[in-house]
Amino acid sequence: MTTGTAGLEVLPREECLALLASVHVGRVVFTERALPAIEPVNFALDDGTIVFRVDSESALAAATRCKAVVAFEADHFEEGGRTGWSVTAVGRWRRVEDPDKIARLCRLRVRPWLQGGDDHFVEIELTQVTGRRLASAAAD
Amino acid sequence: MTTGTAGLEVLPREECLALLASVHVGRVVFTERALPAIEPVNFALDDGTIVFRVDSESALAAATRCKAVVAFEADHFEEGGRTGWSVTAVGRWRRVEDPDKIARLCRLRVRPWLQGGDDHFVEIELTQVTGRRLASAAAD
Repeated sequence: MTTGTAGLEVLPREECLALLASVHVGRVVFTERALPAIEPVNFALDDGTIVFRVDSESALAAATRCKAVVAFEADHFEEGGRTGWSVTAVGRWRRVEDPDKIARLCRLRVRPWLQGGDDHFVEIELTQVTGRRLASAAAD
Repeated sequence: MTTGTAGLEVLPREECLALLASVHVGRVVFTERALPAIEPVNFALDDGTIVFRVDSESALAAATRCKAVVAFEADHFEEGGRTGWSVTAVGRWRRVEDPDKIARLCRLRVRPWLQGGDDHFVEIELTQVTGRRLASAAAD
C-alpha cells in the first residue's frame, strides 16, 4: 500500500479494477455545450473497458457522438462520508459498433436508465486509473 | 412532477436542494491539466452555495486557484442501481476569503479528507441545478 497525503491511501491499479467490479453505478464526466457535465450510469467492466448503455435520444448519447477524453468515477462511502473509496478512470469513449461485441455485451447485466427506444453501448478505455481509500484512522 | 424521457422523473429545484441537504458526500467535476477530473468531497449547503474544505496541498486546492465553472453532483441509488436520484449543480467556484463567513463555516460539519495541514473553504454557486429520479416503475 502507498500512503499519499495524510488520510488517503493510494490504491494500486488491480485493486482499483476490483473495486470498480464491486459496484453497479458509476458517473461519466464529460463536456456538454462547453460546460462540465456528469451523468450516473449502470455499468460493467468488459475486457479492460468500462461499458454502459445509453438511450439514443438522451443528451449523453448525443455527447458520445463526439470523440473525447472523459472521466469515469465510482465510489462507496460509509454513512457520513468518514470512510470509503473512490476510483477514477480517464480515457477515450467510443460507441461500440462491432456486432459480435454488441451481441456479447447484450448478455451483461447493463442497461440504460432511459428506456424510450433504441439504445447502444459506449465503452471507455481505462487508460489512466487512479484510486484512493479514505482510511478510518484518518476519519477519527 | 415532470416526467422527462421514459423512466426518469425531472425534479424541481427545491426538491433538488432538499436531496442535496440529505447527503454528506458529493463530487466536484473540474478540469485538471486539460483533462476531466472528479473528486469526492464532504460538503454542506450554506446560504445557497455548496461548501467544502480542501487541504492546501491537494490537487483540488491547486485547481481552485483558477476561476472556473465547475459541476457538483450528489446521488443516492439503491442496491443494483435500479432506483435512486441524482442532482447536479453547475456554477463558478471560488475560495471563501471573508473572515466572518469562514468563522461561520467552521461551525458546519464539513472537513477535508486530506488533513496534512492548513485548509480552506471553497464554495460553488448553485447557478443551474438539475435533478432526476430513477423511478422504480422504470426499473421493472
